[in-house]
Amino acid sequence: MGLAPGSKAVIVSVGNELLIGKVVNTNLSWLGSKLTELGFRVDRGIVVPDDLDLIAWAFRTAVDAGARVVIATGGLGPTFDDMTSEGLARAMGAEMVVNEEALEMVRRKYGGELTESRVKMARMPRGAKPIPNPVGTAPGVEVEWRGSVIFLLPGVPSEMMAMFEESVKAKLTQLARALKKAEALIRSVGLPESLAAPVVESAAKLGEHTYVKSHPKGSETGKPVLELHVTAYGVSEEEALSKLEEAVDYLLRELGRRGAQVHRIG
Amino acid sequence: MGLAPGSKAVIVSVGNELLIGKVVNTNLSWLGSKLTELGFRVDRGIVVPDDLDLIAWAFRTAVDAGARVVIATGGLGPTFDDMTSEGLARAMGAEMVVNEEALEMVRRKYGGELTESRVKMARMPRGAKPIPNPVGTAPGVEVEWRGSVIFLLPGVPSEMMAMFEESVKAKLTQLARALKKAEALIRSVGLPESLAAPVVESAAKLGEHTYVKSHPKGSETGKPVLELHVTAYGVSEEEALSKLEEAVDYLLRELGRRGAQVHRIG
Repeated sequence: MGLAPGSKAVIVSVGNELLIGKVVNTNLSWLGSKLTELGFRVDRGIVVPDDLDLIAWAFRTAVDAGARVVIATGGLGPTFDDMTSEGLARAMGAEMVVNEEALEMVRRKYGGELTESRVKMARMPRGAKPIPNPVGTAPGVEVEWRGSVIFLLPGVPSEMMAMFEESVKAKLTQLARALKKAEALIRSVGLPESLAAPVVESAAKLGEHTYVKSHPKGSETGKPVLELHVTAYGVSEEEALSKLEEAVDYLLRELGRRGAQVHRIG
Repeated sequence: MGLAPGSKAVIVSVGNELLIGKVVNTNLSWLGSKLTELGFRVDRGIVVPDDLDLIAWAFRTAVDAGARVVIATGGLGPTFDDMTSEGLARAMGAEMVVNEEALEMVRRKYGGELTESRVKMARMPRGAKPIPNPVGTAPGVEVEWRGSVIFLLPGVPSEMMAMFEESVKAKLTQLARALKKAEALIRSVGLPESLAAPVVESAAKLGEHTYVKSHPKGSETGKPVLELHVTAYGVSEEEALSKLEEAVDYLLRELGRRGAQVHRIG
């Protein structure tokens, strides 16, 4: 089925802690939700450890996939295992340079005192621009490469979210040519998911950009409960709504015909 | 730095809901932790939507990366958008066939009644074996391809975890040639992460399989607090412990010399 139409986006998550299971990757779902809202189709997520070659691989893979936007989180701090910028530079074949604007951001954070580890946070691929970090110390990075706009943000969620809202979102809004979206939620009681499946499949075929996802919700007085999340897209709000109504009407009629108690709940 | 030594594993997560941000991918961190415990090096995680080509791409990518083990979650249910088995078959160039043992598992779950959607759950690439599902209805899948052992498990965490514990873990234990592991936790108060960084870097260089990860923990009465997680591996427990002690002693001495109050807390 694929995802909703729109420009393609790939999310890259960097950090050993994600792969050894010390940290749950909430950044991926948060960014996925934001990108989807803005009209992007999040095509895949790539999680790699703190390893230069694997980080470079992740960026090459994202750009090869034709992503208009790549957002990476993690690995921007001062320690030796923070190497996302350098991994990106390796992928791009670009030189790592100290960005003067970024250095000034770091200098201000520390009241002027610069150590080697602090200067490291201002190093980025030549041609990149720093993104201000209103919460922590490490600036983010924005750079264009082979038709993709790549953003590097810190892994600490509070910093990542603040930088996304303050700096990244406006840029993404320009990049997104968002279609209009309409959504509905349907509740069906009494029909097992396996019997509802052919109806759901047919409903999703009613429009090229109509999507139906079924979520089993256990059972109620012994009867299986399903929630069906219907999404339709169109070039105008009217078109999206009209496609949505068509799918909803079909689902209510056909599931009812098969014995389900079914109604729209959202 | 890369991850701990051991056989390489890749985790594949399938589902639109993960990429549009409706669900946080706790399966990845749970499996990452289990695989790491068993001695595997989780090399990367790949998240793809319910899309045949992208699912096939994820499996090809994992196997091309030289993974000894690939575990995928999600997309095994009865609905049209459950297509992980078929995506794997497409990657392998294998035919999709109804597995008789799997069909018997599904039949027993439903008291004998089989519909097209139910039979679908017994379809898997030719040569694969079903994995019993003690909680839900869809069997898992185990198949070998180009030197990788590939496991497909459901996306529902309770089903995934039960199947992992009951069937997958024993197989992985055979596959893992686990090195012995030793761990310590050090707390440092009074030194900013950027000043501790060179010491941490040197400590990690003491042994080929010694790893130090620093976690900033905010500040206490105005002084920055860091926790350093030290891990060392060896072919015996003695070797792992001896490498660990070497790194811990170094960190306590060198951080103390730079003015931190530092002690081992775990």
